[in-house]
Amino acid sequence: MAGFKRLVLDVLKPHEPSTLILAKKLSELENIDGVNISLYEIDQNTENVKITIVGDDMSFEDIKMVIEELGAVIHSIDEIVAGKKLIETVKTEQDR
Amino acid sequence: MAGFKRLVLDVLKPHEPSTLILAKKLSELENIDGVNISLYEIDQNTENVKITIVGDDMSFEDIKMVIEELGAVIHSIDEIVAGKKLIETVKTEQDR
Amino acid sequence: MAGFKRLVLDVLKPHEPSTLILAKKLSELENIDGVNISLYEIDQNTENVKITIVGDDMSFEDIKMVIEELGAVIHSIDEIVAGKKLIETVKTEQDR
Amino acid sequence: MAGFKRLVLDVLKPHEPSTLILAKKLSELENIDGVNISLYEIDQNTENVKITIVGDDMSFEDIKMVIEELGAVIHSIDEIVAGKKLIETVKTEQDR
Amino acid sequence: MAGFKRLVLDVLKPHEPSTLILAKKLSELENIDGVNISLYEIDQNTENVKITIVGDDMSFEDIKMVIEELGAVIHSIDEIVAGKKLIETVKTEQDR
Amino acid sequence: MAGFKRLVLDVLKPHEPSTLILAKKLSELENIDGVNISLYEIDQNTENVKITIVGDDMSFEDIKMVIEELGAVIHSIDEIVAGKKLIETVKTEQDR
Amino acid sequence: MAGFKRLVLDVLKPHEPSTLILAKKLSELENIDGVNISLYEIDQNTENVKITIVGDDMSFEDIKMVIEELGAVIHSIDEIVAGKKLIETVKTEQDR
Repeated sequence: MAGFKRLVLDVLKPHEPSTLILAKKLSELENIDGVNISLYEIDQNTENVKITIVGDDMSFEDIKMVIEELGAVIHSIDEIVAGKKLIETVKTEQDR
Repeated sequence: MAGFKRLVLDVLKPHEPSTLILAKKLSELENIDGVNISLYEIDQNTENVKITIVGDDMSFEDIKMVIEELGAVIHSIDEIVAGKKLIETVKTEQDR
Repeated sequence: MAGFKRLVLDVLKPHEPSTLILAKKLSELENIDGVNISLYEIDQNTENVKITIVGDDMSFEDIKMVIEELGAVIHSIDEIVAGKKLIETVKTEQDR
Repeated sequence: MAGFKRLVLDVLKPHEPSTLILAKKLSELENIDGVNISLYEIDQNTENVKITIVGDDMSFEDIKMVIEELGAVIHSIDEIVAGKKLIETVKTEQDR
Repeated sequence: MAGFKRLVLDVLKPHEPSTLILAKKLSELENIDGVNISLYEIDQNTENVKITIVGDDMSFEDIKMVIEELGAVIHSIDEIVAGKKLIETVKTEQDR
Repeated sequence: MAGFKRLVLDVLKPHEPSTLILAKKLSELENIDGVNISLYEIDQNTENVKITIVGDDMSFEDIKMVIEELGAVIHSIDEIVAGKKLIETVKTEQDR
Repeated sequence: MAGFKRLVLDVLKPHEPSTLILAKKLSELENIDGVNISLYEIDQNTENVKITIVGDDMSFEDIKMVIEELGAVIHSIDEIVAGKKLIETVKTEQDR
């Protein structure tokens, strides 16, 4: 599978290795401009984070591999942006 | 039918083929600048996604064909932008 | 009657001809920059859409004719912008 | 009375003459850049509209005359901007 | 007392002289760029308005004199901006 | 103690000397670009104001001295920005 | 561990040394552009602050050391941005 411009992932991870390591490793992948990892829930042994990755022609397989090598699991892919331009979702009358 | 500048579609799809494949295939269509696919509901066998497609003189028939070839169905067309400029919907006193 | 810069219309239409056709036909009228049609309610035989049309010196009569030729009805004109500049409505203390 | 930069008026009008005519007539007044008329309530015989008029050194008397000649009444002047610059109202701690 | 860059005043005034006159007189004071007067409450004999005045090195005494000469009273000074730059208030964690 | 770029202070003050004097005196301190004072509560003898001060390498001691010389008290320092750039607080998933 | 572009930390600290000192010391670290410290809860002996630190290739170890030397504790790392560009988190359909 080829490349994407932005991915938003819902990820469950153990506390260790730390989210700092996860952010750093993801940001070092090829074709990646930057990574934002936000914590939204902490439990005794795990934490849920929302990962936003931006780049150009990014490989989902590489991203998934880094996440899983650190013992974490992708719960869902909440947003995918693909193509030549970074397209934002639009708020329509259906969302009001 | 000829072309559009932005379409927002409410689509029901099986889990496989994945949304990554759907995003990639849509972004490779002619006259398309980019695609945003956002997940808003997951069930056991299906998922509902909101697809925002931006381009110039896009063909709705081509888009529909890609979606249906991957086993998905367009529930509704939530927004259509056509013409020379990308027009946003306006919040009027009726929406407050 | 002469021209307007932006019109927001509340329109009731049958499912067919499709909103895609309505958007395309409106966008092809003279003096029109673009059209945004947002779906906000679907019933068994009809759908309610909010149409935002932007242009310069647009003819309301032409717009109305296209809408009615496709079997649709203008319920209300929710916003009108006329003049040399596109003026936005202002939120005053009365709206808070 | 001399001129203003922006006026927001709460106006009650009969359905006819239409708001389209009111918008057009106001936009044709001297020193007026543009007019936005938003519908916020419809009754059997009347409708309430919010009129935002922007210009430079506008005459309130002229505006009032156009509104009243079309059988409408100014309920209240919700906002007045006067001076060299268009000043927006500020949200203070008192508004939170 | 010397000058200010922006003042937001909560003012109680009789219906007459009108707010149009008040806006005009304030906008004609020295060192004033513009005035925004928003109506937020009407009673039988009085109305409450929020006055935003922007300028450079404005005199509060002059502003107060104009307001009181027209029979109005300053209830409170809701915001004062002074100095070389127009500073906006910041939303902190304490405001959430 | 050396300098800061922005400080947001929660201050309790007597009605006199007025907030106008406080704003003016703070704006005249060295290294200060401007001051915004917003009133958020009035009692019989005192008032609570939120003071936002922006500058470069500002001295907290000078600011505190001005405030206390006018009979006011700093209740809390709600926000501090220090460094080369003015950094805004970020809304994270924890704030939603 | 190497560098980050933005970190948002939830920190518990004693009242003394003051947050002013903490802000100043953090802003003086290498590779740091600026620091924003917002107070969100005060207790008798401690206070909770939200620290936003922006820079380039920042060292988390240095930041942690400054915080702990002043007797404070990092409760959680609420957001991490790493890579070449400062990536903001995206609001998806899952957040609505």
